[in-house]
Parts: sequence; C-alpha cells; structure tokens
Amino acid sequence: MRLFRKRYHPPGTAPGTLNAFEVQDDQPRSVQLIEYSQDHIKEIQTPEMSKLGDSLHSDHLTWLRVNGLPDSDWMKALGGAIEIHPLAQEDILNGGQRSKIEPYDSQFFVVIDVPDLKNKTLSIDQLYILWHKNYLITFYTGRRDMFDPVLKRLHSEGTRARKFGLDYLIYAILDLAIDQAFPILEHLGTQLENLEEELMDGPDENVLHKIHQIKRQIIHLRRAFWPQRDVISQLMRDEDHWFSQSVRLYLRDCYDHTIQIMELIESYRDTSSSLHDLYLSSASMRMNDIMKVLAIISTVFIPLTFIAGIYGMNFQANSKWAMPELSWAYGYPMVWCLFIIITIGMLIWFRKKRWI
Amino acid sequence: MRLFRKRYHPPGTAPGTLNAFEVQDDQPRSVQLIEYSQDHIKEIQTPEMSKLGDSLHSDHLTWLRVNGLPDSDWMKALGGAIEIHPLAQEDILNGGQRSKIEPYDSQFFVVIDVPDLKNKTLSIDQLYILWHKNYLITFYTGRRDMFDPVLKRLHSEGTRARKFGLDYLIYAILDLAIDQAFPILEHLGTQLENLEEELMDGPDENVLHKIHQIKRQIIHLRRAFWPQRDVISQLMRDEDHWFSQSVRLYLRDCYDHTIQIMELIESYRDTSSSLHDLYLSSASMRMNDIMKVLAIISTVFIPLTFIAGIYGMNFQANSKWAMPELSWAYGYPMVWCLFIIITIGMLIWFRKKRWI
Amino acid sequence: MRLFRKRYHPPGTAPGTLNAFEVQDDQPRSVQLIEYSQDHIKEIQTPEMSKLGDSLHSDHLTWLRVNGLPDSDWMKALGGAIEIHPLAQEDILNGGQRSKIEPYDSQFFVVIDVPDLKNKTLSIDQLYILWHKNYLITFYTGRRDMFDPVLKRLHSEGTRARKFGLDYLIYAILDLAIDQAFPILEHLGTQLENLEEELMDGPDENVLHKIHQIKRQIIHLRRAFWPQRDVISQLMRDEDHWFSQSVRLYLRDCYDHTIQIMELIESYRDTSSSLHDLYLSSASMRMNDIMKVLAIISTVFIPLTFIAGIYGMNFQANSKWAMPELSWAYGYPMVWCLFIIITIGMLIWFRKKRWI
Amino acid sequence: MRLFRKRYHPPGTAPGTLNAFEVQDDQPRSVQLIEYSQDHIKEIQTPEMSKLGDSLHSDHLTWLRVNGLPDSDWMKALGGAIEIHPLAQEDILNGGQRSKIEPYDSQFFVVIDVPDLKNKTLSIDQLYILWHKNYLITFYTGRRDMFDPVLKRLHSEGTRARKFGLDYLIYAILDLAIDQAFPILEHLGTQLENLEEELMDGPDENVLHKIHQIKRQIIHLRRAFWPQRDVISQLMRDEDHWFSQSVRLYLRDCYDHTIQIMELIESYRDTSSSLHDLYLSSASMRMNDIMKVLAIISTVFIPLTFIAGIYGMNFQANSKWAMPELSWAYGYPMVWCLFIIITIGMLIWFRKKRWI
Amino acid sequence: MRLFRKRYHPPGTAPGTLNAFEVQDDQPRSVQLIEYSQDHIKEIQTPEMSKLGDSLHSDHLTWLRVNGLPDSDWMKALGGAIEIHPLAQEDILNGGQRSKIEPYDSQFFVVIDVPDLKNKTLSIDQLYILWHKNYLITFYTGRRDMFDPVLKRLHSEGTRARKFGLDYLIYAILDLAIDQAFPILEHLGTQLENLEEELMDGPDENVLHKIHQIKRQIIHLRRAFWPQRDVISQLMRDEDHWFSQSVRLYLRDCYDHTIQIMELIESYRDTSSSLHDLYLSSASMRMNDIMKVLAIISTVFIPLTFIAGIYGMNFQANSKWAMPELSWAYGYPMVWCLFIIITIGMLIWFRKKRWI
Repeated sequence: MRLFRKRYHPPGTAPGTLNAFEVQDDQPRSVQLIEYSQDHIKEIQTPEMSKLGDSLHSDHLTWLRVNGLPDSDWMKALGGAIEIHPLAQEDILNGGQRSKIEPYDSQFFVVIDVPDLKNKTLSIDQLYILWHKNYLITFYTGRRDMFDPVLKRLHSEGTRARKFGLDYLIYAILDLAIDQAFPILEHLGTQLENLEEELMDGPDENVLHKIHQIKRQIIHLRRAFWPQRDVISQLMRDEDHWFSQSVRLYLRDCYDHTIQIMELIESYRDTSSSLHDLYLSSASMRMNDIMKVLAIISTVFIPLTFIAGIYGMNFQANSKWAMPELSWAYGYPMVWCLFIIITIGMLIWFRKKRWI
Repeated sequence: MRLFRKRYHPPGTAPGTLNAFEVQDDQPRSVQLIEYSQDHIKEIQTPEMSKLGDSLHSDHLTWLRVNGLPDSDWMKALGGAIEIHPLAQEDILNGGQRSKIEPYDSQFFVVIDVPDLKNKTLSIDQLYILWHKNYLITFYTGRRDMFDPVLKRLHSEGTRARKFGLDYLIYAILDLAIDQAFPILEHLGTQLENLEEELMDGPDENVLHKIHQIKRQIIHLRRAFWPQRDVISQLMRDEDHWFSQSVRLYLRDCYDHTIQIMELIESYRDTSSSLHDLYLSSASMRMNDIMKVLAIISTVFIPLTFIAGIYGMNFQANSKWAMPELSWAYGYPMVWCLFIIITIGMLIWFRKKRWI
Repeated sequence: MRLFRKRYHPPGTAPGTLNAFEVQDDQPRSVQLIEYSQDHIKEIQTPEMSKLGDSLHSDHLTWLRVNGLPDSDWMKALGGAIEIHPLAQEDILNGGQRSKIEPYDSQFFVVIDVPDLKNKTLSIDQLYILWHKNYLITFYTGRRDMFDPVLKRLHSEGTRARKFGLDYLIYAILDLAIDQAFPILEHLGTQLENLEEELMDGPDENVLHKIHQIKRQIIHLRRAFWPQRDVISQLMRDEDHWFSQSVRLYLRDCYDHTIQIMELIESYRDTSSSLHDLYLSSASMRMNDIMKVLAIISTVFIPLTFIAGIYGMNFQANSKWAMPELSWAYGYPMVWCLFIIITIGMLIWFRKKRWI
Repeated sequence: MRLFRKRYHPPGTAPGTLNAFEVQDDQPRSVQLIEYSQDHIKEIQTPEMSKLGDSLHSDHLTWLRVNGLPDSDWMKALGGAIEIHPLAQEDILNGGQRSKIEPYDSQFFVVIDVPDLKNKTLSIDQLYILWHKNYLITFYTGRRDMFDPVLKRLHSEGTRARKFGLDYLIYAILDLAIDQAFPILEHLGTQLENLEEELMDGPDENVLHKIHQIKRQIIHLRRAFWPQRDVISQLMRDEDHWFSQSVRLYLRDCYDHTIQIMELIESYRDTSSSLHDLYLSSASMRMNDIMKVLAIISTVFIPLTFIAGIYGMNFQANSKWAMPELSWAYGYPMVWCLFIIITIGMLIWFRKKRWI
Repeated sequence: MRLFRKRYHPPGTAPGTLNAFEVQDDQPRSVQLIEYSQDHIKEIQTPEMSKLGDSLHSDHLTWLRVNGLPDSDWMKALGGAIEIHPLAQEDILNGGQRSKIEPYDSQFFVVIDVPDLKNKTLSIDQLYILWHKNYLITFYTGRRDMFDPVLKRLHSEGTRARKFGLDYLIYAILDLAIDQAFPILEHLGTQLENLEEELMDGPDENVLHKIHQIKRQIIHLRRAFWPQRDVISQLMRDEDHWFSQSVRLYLRDCYDHTIQIMELIESYRDTSSSLHDLYLSSASMRMNDIMKVLAIISTVFIPLTFIAGIYGMNFQANSKWAMPELSWAYGYPMVWCLFIIITIGMLIWFRKKRWI
C-alpha cells in the first residue's frame, strides 16, 4: 500500500481534463446494464453506448455497473450520452479521491473507499456512485465480484431490494462497501492478539516489524474510514429528499456501523501503541537481564583472576621480600580460601542488591 | 476479552437477516413474564408464545425478561407476535453492538454495554431494552441474576418501582447496568495502587505484563463506557416524552454517574501510562546501577591484572634488560605499592565522577 | 490519596437509600446555626432539630453549617424537617461526588471539591451547599476551620457579606473553596522547580519517585478542578435568578480563577512530563559516560594483557621456534615499546572518535 | 527553511508603514499586464505606472501580474494609482504572512502559501491576490514561471478561463497554488517509504537524521497548509457574492483538495513518528544483540581464564599442599575436561535462557 | 521565570482587598498624564492626585500612564478620584493575572501579558488598561520605555494616532504589546536551529539542558499567548461599540498576529520535542557504537588471552600427558597460527553481522 495513492494532473491543468493514466489492472473490464422493476429484471452485458442514453432515461430503474477503470474515451462518450459533470468524470479517472459526496445540479455523486483483503494483503479500492432520478451508475476498481451479493438479492423476487426504489439499492451498495471493514478489522484484531502472545515469550525483531506493519495499516484504514462517516451522515440528513423514510432508518444502521468501525480502529491504535511500549520495555528488561549476568560473572571472576595473576609473577630475587607466600607450606590452600571468601562475599553482596 | 467481539453476517447480506450463530453459553436460557400494577404483581416462568401478544398488549405494565441469547426461531416467533423491527431483531441476535438508542416507529430500542467482573475476569455483556406503551422487553446475555435487585424492589409494595410507571423501571434497569462500573473501577484502582507499590521495590517483568493487562482493560472499558453517556443524555433530552418529570431527575443522576465513570477511566489511563513511564525509568536506573558496578570493578582490576601479567612474563636472556625488576630485592613490595596507588587513584576518580 | 474515592451502594439499590458508611473521622462533628441580617447576627451551637425547621423558614437569613459527615439518622431527621431531595441526601452521605450543580424543584444543590494541604499531604474533601430562599446549609467533611474566614467577615458589621444577601454568602464560600487551589499550586510549582534543580546535579532514583508523585497529584487535582469550572459557569448563567447583578460580577472573578487554575495545572503537567523526559535523557547520558570509561579502559588494557599473557607462556622445546623473543637481549624493552605504541594508538583513535 | 520566516517592523511601528527590507532575490522582477475578454487578449510587459490606473479601471478584465517582491516606492506609486489598503501594502512588503483572507471596503485581499520543490529543496513562497470588480493583481515571490499554465489557458480561445469571468481566473490561480502540494506530498511519501525500507536493513545515524528532516518539513508544511483550508472555505461561503454558481462548484473541488492535503500530512506525521519509534526499537534490538554476544563470550571465557590463571601460579614450597595438581600425571587432561564441562554447561544454560 | 507567578491573598479574604505586596522593583515608578486632541498635545509628569479627576473627566482625550506597580495607598486615592471597580484595583495590585477582558458598568478593563527579552532572559510582565469615554489609564510593570513608540507617534501631528480617537490609541498599545512576541519568537527560532546543528555533531548534556530550557520557555509563552487571542477576539466583536469601523480593521490585523503567534509556538513545540527525540535516538546510537567497539575488542581478545593463559600453566609431571605441546618444536608458531585464525574468524563473523 502506497502512502500517496492519488493520481493527479500537473498543477495548473484545467479542471475536468480527462487524461488516460496507465493503470496496471490484470482483470478484464466489464460493463453491465441491469434494468429492473418490482416484477421484472433484465441484465445486459456490455451494452452499446448508443442505446445507453435511452436505457438510462427510460422509466425503468436502471443500474449501470462498470467494473474496472473506464478509459478516457469511453468516459467521454458516456459523458456525452448522459451528461456527467466534468469534475465527476475527472475524479473517476484520476482515482485516489477522499470519500466524499458531491451534489451536482441534477445528479448526486458519491465516492467511497472500499477496503479489501486479498490473500492477507490489504488494499483500498474506490467505488464511485452516480445517480439521477431513475438510474444509478457505479464504477468500482477492485475485485470484480465485490457487489455480486447485491445483484443476487436484486434477482430474487420479493426482496426489499426489488420492492423498494433506487434509494434502497444505493443503501445496499453502500452498506456492503462499509461492512467490508468488519472482516478486515477482525483479521487485524486477531493479529494484534497473536502479537501480544508472541511478546509474552520475549521480544524479537520479527515481532517489531509486524507491529510496525499493523500500525501502518491502521494509519491507512483510519484515513479511509474517517470520511466514510461524513458521507453517510450527509446522506442521512438527505437535504435533497432522495431517500424514503424507511430507507433512512437503514442508513442510520449503516451510520452506526461507520462509528463502530472508527471506535474499533481507535482502540486498535491504542492497543498497537501499547504493544509497542510493551515491546520496548520487555526488550530493556532482557537487556537488564543480560547485563546482570555479565556483571555478576565479571565482578566475581575479575578479582579472582587478578589474584591468580599475582602469584603467577616471577619475582626471584634472593630476598625475603620476593613473594614469600609462594614458599609457605600452606600458601596454595590459603589462596583457595581467599578465592572462596571473595566469591561468597560477592554473592552475598549481589543478594543484598537483589541481583540474584 | 477479544479485541473484536462483534458477530456479523457476511457483507452484502440483507439487513434484518436472522442467522443463528453458535454461541457457547453454558447457562440455561430463561424467559420470565412479570405483570404488575401499583397493587399487584404476577410472575410467569417461560410463558407460552401464543399468549404473549395478549399479555404485552393488555393494560397492565408488563416486563418480559429474557436471560441468555434467544435462538433465531424464538425471535422470529416473538417478532411475529408483537412486531419488532427487523433491524432490532438482527442487532439482538448478532450481539457486540455499540451502546446506542434507536427510536423505531412506535417502539424504543436501547442497547447498552454491561461490564461484569466474575472471578477477577472482566467481561462485557450486552443488555437490549425494547419498550412500547405498556410493555418492556429486556434481553441480557450475561450473568442470570444481574437484574434480580430490580425485580426484588418491584416485588415489595410501596416502593417507587411499583408506584411509578414503566419509565421508572427503565431507569432502574439502566441505573443498575451503569453502576456495575463502580465495583470494577474500584478493583482496577486498587490494582493500580498495588502495582505502584510493587514498582517501588524495583521493576520486574511480572509488573510489566500486569501494567499492560490493565491498559488493555482500560481500552476495552473506555470503548464500552464512552457511548453509554450518549445513550443516557439522549434519553434525558427525551424528545418522545417517555419519561415523567421526576424520573428525568433520576436519569440526570444516572448521567452524572456516566460522566464520573469516564473521568475515572481517563485518570486511570493517565495513571497507567505514568506507571509505565515509571517502570521504564526505573529499569534504566537499575541498568545504570549494574553498569556502574561492572565498570568500577573492571576499571580497577583490569590495569592491575595487566601489571601482574607483565611480571608473569618469562624473559630470561642473560642481559640487564631482561626484566631486572624481578631480581630487585624490593621488587615485589613495590608492585604491591603500585597496585594500591592505582586502586586509590581510581577510587578518588570515581568519587569525583560521583559514581560511588 | 486513593484513585477511587467514591463510596457507593451495591448496584441496584434504590436511589436515595441512606446507608451509614463507616468513616474514619477523628475530628468531632459540629453543627452551627447562624442567623443574620444587615444589623444583627446570632450564632447557635448544636441547635435542636425540632426548632431547626422554624429557624430556617423564618425571615432571617440563616446559615446552617455542618462540619463533618452527618450520620444517616440525623440526615433523615433534617430531611423530614425541611424537605431535602433524597438524591441530595444520598450524595452527601455517600461522598466522593463529582463537583456538580443540581437544581431541584425549589432548592439548589452544589457539590464542590475542596483541595487541602495538611502537613505537605494533599487531600481533597467535599463541600455540599444547599440553599433555598432564605437559608443555606453547608456540609463540609474536611478541616473544621476551613470556612471560618467567611464567618469572621459575616461577624464584622458593614462588610459586603452582611450588607448583601444570601447570594453573596454563597459566592464567598465558593470563592474560598476555589482559592484553596492557589497555595497548593504554589507548593507544587516550588516542588517542580526544586526537582528541576536536583536534576541538574544528575538523576537519581529519589528524584524519579518524586516526579511520579507530583504527576499523580496533578492527575488527582485535574480531576477535581475540571468540573469546578462548569459549576461556576453554570451559576454565572444563573437561569433561576438566584444572584444579583453585582454578585454575578464577583462570580465572574471566581470563574476567572477556575480557568487560571486549570491553565496552571496544564502547564504543570507539561512541565512534569518535560522533567521526566529530562530525567530519562539525563540517565541515558550518564550511562553513555559510564560505558565510555569502561570501553576505554577495556579496549586499552585487554590487548596489552594479551601480549603480557603471550610472554608468560612456557614453551621450552629445544628449538629455535620456541619463543625466541624471550632470550633476545632487548626483548623486554621491546615489549614495553609495543605496550606504549598500542596505548598511544588507541588514545589517538579514541580522540578521533571524540570519546575523550 | 527557517522556523521563523516573517519579516516585521520593530513593535510599535505605525501599521501600514512600508519599509524596504533587504531581500536576496537573484531572479529579476517582472511586471505583466494582461487585458482580456471572451474574444481578445493583450499582454503588456512592464506597463507604465501612469497608465496603470486607467487600464485597471477600464471595462476589460485585467490581470496585473507582479513576479518578485515589489520595492516600497513602486508599491507606494501603485497604491496611489489604484487605492490599496495600507495594511495590504504592508503585508505584501513584509511577507511571511499566514494564509488569510481580508475583505477591505471594496477590495478583496487573499494571502496564500505556495510550497515549491526546487532541486529536492522545499521552499514556501507567498502569493498575494487582490481583486476588485474588473481587475486582479497578483504578487508572487517564488519561481517566475509558477503561474504560466494559467496564462496559457487564458491565451487559448474557448477555454473556460476565457469564457468565464474574473472569478474563474481567481479560482484557477488558487487551484494551481494549492495543487502544488501534491507533487511535494508524493515526493515526501516516497521518501518515507524509502526510509522504511532502509530501516529494515538496520538503523544507522543517517536514517535518523533523514527522519528528523522529514519531520521538520512536515511541521513546516502543516503550518502552511492548515490555514489554506480556512481561506478556501471562507471563499466558498462567499458572503460578498464574488463567485458565480458554477465557479463555486469548482471551489468546492479545490476545498476537497485542501482537506485531502491535510489528511495526507496527518498520516505522514503518524507514519514518521511510527518510523522514529521503529528506529528506536530497532536500535535497542541491535544493542541487545551486541550485548548478548559480549555476555556469552565473556561469561564463557572469564571463568576458563581464571582456571588457567590458577595453574599459572608459582607455588613451589616443598609441601604436599603446594599445587599438587601440577604434578599429577593426568592433571593437564583433567583441566581440559574441566574447560569443556564448564563451556558445555554454560552453553546449555544460555540455551535455556534462550540467548542462543 | 517562576512557574507560579501569581500573588494572592490568603483564601477567604474579601474581594477587592488592597494589600501592598513587597515587590522588588529596582526601577523608579513614574506617572505621566498626556492630554491630546487632533491639534494639541500636553504632557504632565507626576500629576497631582487632586487635579487628576478633573483632567480625566474633561473633554480632552487623556492618557494616564503609570509605569511600575502603584502602591496600595496611591491606588486607593486614584480609586476615590475616578471610581475604579475594587476587583480591577485588586487585580492590578495582585499582578500575575490571566490576560482577560472585564466590562464593568461604565468602564472597560483589559489585562494582557507582555513578554519581554532583556539580556537574553525572558520575562513576562503585565499591562493593565482601563478606559472610559474620554480617558485611558495604563499600568505597566515592566521596562519603563516599552510604550514610548506609541507616545512618539502621538506627538507627531497628522498621524493616525492623533487623528483617530481613543480607540485607535487602545489598539496601538495592544498592538505593541502583542507584537513584542515576534522578536522573542525569532530569538527562540534561532536558538532551536542552533541546537539542531549542535545535535548534528553529537549529543552532549549541555544540549539536553538547553532543549529543556527552551521547552520551559515555550510552556510559559504558550500560557501567556493563548488568552491574548481571546482578548483581541472579544474586543473585535465589540459588543459595547467602543471601536470605530476603521479601527476594527486594524484590530483584525492584530488578531491575525495572535493566531500567527500561536501557530509559531505550536510548531516550536513540535520542533523542540522532535529535537528531544533526535537527542535521545542520537545518544542511543552513540551507545551502540561504544558497545560495538567494546564487544569487538573483548570478543576477539578474551579467547586469545585464554589460550595464552593455558600455555602459561605450570604442569610439570613427568608424564607424556603434562602439556606436551610445550615441548613440541613448532608449538609456539602453531599457537600464533591459532591466534591469527581465531582473529580472522571473528572478524569475518563481525563482518557478516555487519558490526564492522
């Protein structure tokens, strides 16, 4: 995950300029047109651009679902067919927007971050939703099957998704996007708890880098989740009366989730920094331990070695001052006594200092 | 205590879906129906579902008390008998909600975290309260006897609980749920003070892990207590006029408690991080101490040992340059003088550096 | 000072229950009734309970001053004589409340923390003030003579305390309670400055524990002072018109003091944590110093000792390879040259590394 | 980048005093007058001051673009010709203002920080914009070609810049100024990620100073970006109706960018301090490693050397107590056994302590 | 600079009590009366108290400028002559107030902190401003010539100070007081940058104490500057219509300065704590360096010394097991080979560990 993941034109470019960025996307792009009403549903793969305008402006509820980044030509064509504000077009092509809500004259444009966890790697993709009276267009750059559950609910007759209007569909899509956070947070929570247990066994550099990785992910997720709350709260206030009373109740549930997600992220942040503190203290504890052992061994043996060194000296003058101890009958045992006395003295002293 | 303790459906599931989660709950589930008015009270264990609707919609004040997690079938049956909003049903079955308040069309739904301390282990269970004109339903997943004190007060005639309406009962239940925090905070406070005393004796790894444990518990409790205040403050504003003037006075008392709890938690947080700082500094102090001893012993004896080593060399050439000191009459005593001078010099130097 | 200093009933107890807690209070309890108007003042020690009701409801301004914790029976009797809200009674008996303001139907109830410094020990006691049209009741659990200065001003004719109404008396009592903070903050400020000077001399464990003690006291005081500001600001807004225009001016002065106190506490907090940082860095500096000395001595003498060790070896084969240096005429002086060269080389290297 | 980069008159100088500060600016100053309407555009280099007044007050839209700091005389002349508020004149000459918006009686004055990255060195220059009905004056102290892209768009017929009024030109200039942040943030983001990778290889002092440099730049940028948001939000509220409906939409886009920039800066701040923590922990980890090796080698060899020292002693008395081991037949192999046993014992003990 | 610099009466003293505190002030007190209108100005040194009342209540604009702390008698006399609210009198005599604004019945009272830098020592003095319709009284306890620049501007005819009313004079005085911060902040900024450079050379205890000193000064200045902003913003709102439209414009400029000052202080705070972090990390880096050298030298030589020790042993039994190596012809060269092999092995191992 890059820290800076916005694509941007050089400063000074006219707003609404549509440049094609090179994007590495190994999944094929797909476009789907879903027309539905309470009692029928029709799905068209890769609809023709020329007929798109009519389809969207018909009386049916229509969902145009674009998976993968559209190229700038397609975008311009679409913008010609159904009037999309140039700033919205630019935002979709540029990517890396902040989750936000933009009321244009007759359309509503919502950008929302959708975190995803593929093979234990976190990625944050973006969902763009654009709606007008009867139609809804979504652009999503991540996993192709992300919003299939909503489509499935739309296919089964009698579900709320079919019975209610476009507003419920918008809610269902947003709800799915936001609830993506829960499996990720569960995964992170488990990782934090595992790290905690690993730390109990003692700190090692591996744990340190894992803690840092989690901290980074939390920073990324926080940046992604924070504006989600604003988006949903603005939709709830619903100054343009897009949402019916009952759907607004569901939006409130969705809003609750965004708050819960933020609170979880905050408590993860606290936990991860508490883990880091624990790591540091634990490492300094080990250090103390190592130093203690070194100090004990050194302070016991260094004086002893010195004494042994003394009696290894070769003073040989014919004088009674020349190392007379060496020729005492009990010299050697006395040195051993000295060794033992010093050692015991040291140990008592360490005990008193509570080192052992 | 898990960091992530929400149960959730896979993202994209229709809201209000009631899945039965497997929950390990070793206590039997119990359902109680309490009908009461100012001058009578009747308690029915495990009431029949078919008669439940009539009981709840009668003129008596009725408290349906469910202990333990209801299974999804029972929930659906209840929802059929007395109309419960699907989102409320889902919330109760899912568990792990954030404390919140939900005004549905004709009902009021409150979720509140209830911390509990069993055998020195902290757990946070959830209480769900749902009320309508004449009836009140509570679902509680924790200790079975938690709300018995309220029931007891209801049984004794002439108490406020009997004289006042349903609103007082709601207050009494919430008050009990919130006051649960006090014994826990008292316990934590005592633990913090004990840790402080242990730290006076010197840092050890045990204390470190205890500090971390308390920090974790504080993070959990903070997350649980923070939204409690919002819940009570929203109830106090009482835009739907559920509460009489006098009960609102009691709610204010309850609100005061939530603030007091938050302030205590905050000062515990400060105290625990101050303890952690103390731990770290204290450990680095010990380290300094150990290093000082090691350095003193080493710097005194290493030069001495070197000198002893010199006179242990075996230069034996027939030359006046070959270690003449060894054959001086007073060579040995002179070396001893050197030893003593060096030692005293070192000690004076350490004294000047204030190491000893 | 305990972290948790609230007394509480077991959760679920009916609000307003008056239990007698065992409190260790070695000072005798005293009750005083002070009746005064602009031109007379009368003081009655331990007034009879039966006549209390009449006294308080007479036209005179009356101050009932209770020093020490009333027992629950006395409280119940008083509550019977002059109608005190059960929640107020409970708060007074329980103690350990958060500073707050409670407007009951016809009475006003204020709880405020009063810090006190006896023999350099910080304690926080509570003052409860209850007033109605003509009377004022204070309960104070701390030092008996705390509010004597106000009484003295009441005794001297012509003072504002006598001329103005009950509102000025309330202000005077609160003002005294709040200004108690200044001598304590002055004491803490002096302590912090002393610690700063002690730290200049070098860190020792004693200083560390003193810093921690001050941090703890700051946490306690912050918790006590923070709500004081709210209390005074609520009184200033004075929605029930208890205070005359001129007394409100004095309250504003009092409010300024609460802000000044909070700002001082905050800057003490910053200072104490800056001191702690200084301590840590200073300790790590000393450590570096010690290590440097150890490293210099060791790295100089260890190679020398090794060389001395070499020439202490006893290879004695009749071979020209068996330590020929030992029999060179200038072997010994050459070794000394080696010693000196190595030492000088090391010192130059240390100098370059800027260790010495 | 200086921490304090404001130029100021000595305190007490009358406001609006125009002193010429000595500024080192190696680029020549240039003045350009651009007159344009929907279908024509005229550019005059270094216009005569005397005709300036007429040009600005004509019906054409006029942009007077001053690159480099004007001297105080020129400023006074300009102020005479077209009435500029003395405080605005002073602000422009002094420089180092905070980004702000000043509505003077008939003019609007905006100061905005423009960060710039020349040869990997960050600098923050200031753009002053002053506008009235028909004219716009910009003063910019940084790179001369910074606002050329806007001029280019103005030159090409049919662009929004030409079609729309002065308000769009103001927006275009501000947009360019604010979008300057993106390349800089991208650069910083890349630097942070590189540092992260360098840290994986192990901490070294170079990395440390790089982290500190980035922290400093973030502090500077934060101070520069924070007030930008206020400026744009105040313009958006547009209480004086300078901006048309459609331009306000573009301003909202610009406002979104300021928020995005702040959020990026905040997450960079978190990342950089997390990197610093990682650095510290990683360094302490290395330290532990080093100490472990030292301790293992020392604790193994110190006792062995002591034993070798013992049997190097020269006790030679004719007594059976004088080092009898030396004359045992198997004395030497037994010492070697002792060496091996001690070593293996130590290694087992280290293993148990998990040092190796 | 003392942490606690308020003078206060013992708690419980009646408000408005004027006690003379002993203040060490080595500068003589001076009183000046300045009467001015658009076309004349008159300055009277040490005016007589009896005529003061008339002067102040005349139609001229009058500025009574008191330098140094007035004694309580003088204050009482002044209070008698022109009615000053007792709380204002007390505040002036007590000193150490928080910057604030007090609207008394007919007067306005402003207290503002004025930082000053004499001989590189920071001090914070207080300016008290009291004004009524036609007169302005200032009390300032710091440097006597602080407000001379304003007086000078007043003396030169035709300046705004002379043309505009009393409100401009108030603004000019406040502006000077607030702008005092800039030279101080510039000084601090330079100090921080110097410290940064000193740190590049390596950490030493001197730098540490300098960082702590700057941190302390920042804490003091923050406490002094924070309320300044409130004061100016309250004056700008100008609910009592003291200020004319054009002066309010100047006040806005002044307000901008207070914000700029706060932002600078905040970024200094961040910088100083980032410096402290740098110091700590840099110190731990040095430590690692020292330890590495010690560890390398020790781990290389300790085993060598041990081997030399072995062959210094005196096993002399007539047995082929008694140190046969000693009598081998190539024993000594083989030991040297061992020495060299061990050394090279160690160095390779250190290289692999990247210690060298």
